[in-house]
Amino acid sequence: MGQPRTVFFVSDGTGITAETLGNTLLTQFDTVDFKKTTLPFINTTEKAQATVDLINQLSARQEARPLVFSTTVNDEIRAILRACNCLFLDLFDGFVHTIEGELQQKSTHAQGRAHGLADSQRYNTRIAAMNYAMEHDDGQSTRDLSRADLILIAPSRCGKTPTSLYLALQHGLFATNFPLTEDDLEHMKLPKSLDGLADKCFGLTSDPERLSQIRSERRPGSKYASLAQCSYELRQAEQLYRRFNIPFISSAAMSIEEMATLVMQEKDLRRQSF
Amino acid sequence: MGQPRTVFFVSDGTGITAETLGNTLLTQFDTVDFKKTTLPFINTTEKAQATVDLINQLSARQEARPLVFSTTVNDEIRAILRACNCLFLDLFDGFVHTIEGELQQKSTHAQGRAHGLADSQRYNTRIAAMNYAMEHDDGQSTRDLSRADLILIAPSRCGKTPTSLYLALQHGLFATNFPLTEDDLEHMKLPKSLDGLADKCFGLTSDPERLSQIRSERRPGSKYASLAQCSYELRQAEQLYRRFNIPFISSAAMSIEEMATLVMQEKDLRRQSF
Repeated sequence: MGQPRTVFFVSDGTGITAETLGNTLLTQFDTVDFKKTTLPFINTTEKAQATVDLINQLSARQEARPLVFSTTVNDEIRAILRACNCLFLDLFDGFVHTIEGELQQKSTHAQGRAHGLADSQRYNTRIAAMNYAMEHDDGQSTRDLSRADLILIAPSRCGKTPTSLYLALQHGLFATNFPLTEDDLEHMKLPKSLDGLADKCFGLTSDPERLSQIRSERRPGSKYASLAQCSYELRQAEQLYRRFNIPFISSAAMSIEEMATLVMQEKDLRRQSF
Repeated sequence: MGQPRTVFFVSDGTGITAETLGNTLLTQFDTVDFKKTTLPFINTTEKAQATVDLINQLSARQEARPLVFSTTVNDEIRAILRACNCLFLDLFDGFVHTIEGELQQKSTHAQGRAHGLADSQRYNTRIAAMNYAMEHDDGQSTRDLSRADLILIAPSRCGKTPTSLYLALQHGLFATNFPLTEDDLEHMKLPKSLDGLADKCFGLTSDPERLSQIRSERRPGSKYASLAQCSYELRQAEQLYRRFNIPFISSAAMSIEEMATLVMQEKDLRRQSF
């Protein structure tokens, strides 16, 4: 393999949209080594010119020209960027015109809309959801549990915390989570504070080997981390989910995003994306 | 305003990329009322056909045809979807061919790559970052502080917690945060446990009115929430940041994403996007 190929994500806002689509496209070329840089807030012609200078300097020193993924909405800024020595991929322009035609409406060309503070009420809900998820992590609080959109339950270290925080932060959902204790698992019952809330529950499970490995990082050599204990807890948990008709998925081979997507789909929760 | 315009985000994976670019494009048409639905995991020809049936049924009942944003990589699935009665916006196809030409390489057409478990080591780092951020939220722990990529400091309720959790979850950064107490602010000093760590610190501030409003939701009528107290704390905090040469930004009119972007830019932290 030669020099890594240089990639820029350029945006007049945070760069999140440019990164998301750009990275998704680049995953389709997995044998190529990419060196990626995000240039956010390129929202003036001066910054655009400085960006062009930076890219051209780099380009002059490299075998192959850089790839530039852009989501700038301002025509003047985009025209400056487009002139640089690169493969310029505008993620916006073609689509905006197509949508303008379909809706018979001009676009606003407003910068930094997508990940800014466009809708403050929606934003406040998101912060409230995150505070709720933090306060209720790992069964720490039972206050106002009826407000929960969702209660994740699972034995320790099956991915409850990252999944609930992701659901709160990215989708504004009031997500909470409860550990299933040895006592719950032995007596095949839901935690007492979840009485009457089984319809909000969603279960997580895992593979015994994977769980044992994760628990070993925390407490190596312990009974808690042993394969026997992990197998037992997962078996009991899955039986408990079935008994209470609680849908469940395994976190063993899934990313946080995939788990969150499946949970929302199964519980018919409205997705929002921040 | 008539019927809301129906929008679908269709993907063979989580749908996050389709939503991100689709929503970004739709923010450019802010007078139109959109009704959005995400259809994730459309990864077989059967599911694609069922999706077409669903969209066509809806289309038949509405004045205007739906908008469909798609990021499916499989040619056969995409061909089925494209035939439905809608404005079909393929966020992938054109770009993939352009990039294939530039890199002189065929794309892999692998489904669900972008938000799946492609790189497990990278994924484990992300989970470790999130656990670290949770453990260290609001100065709860001082264990292993030298591991931090970043320490956010601010008076109570300036946005430390959402920003650190976002940096951990979305960018895999070991982000922690410390409150500035009345004692710190009065004596214009950094919290004791941050001795020698000022170069990792980043400050947040806010507007007194905005902070007072947020604090009032938690403790209405308290001294803590009073405008006088908020003004005092923010003034002292900003002076403290300047004294210790700590960069800072105001959270008053910024989204979590914008703050996170500015913090990474200022501290020269490598962005990752999950």
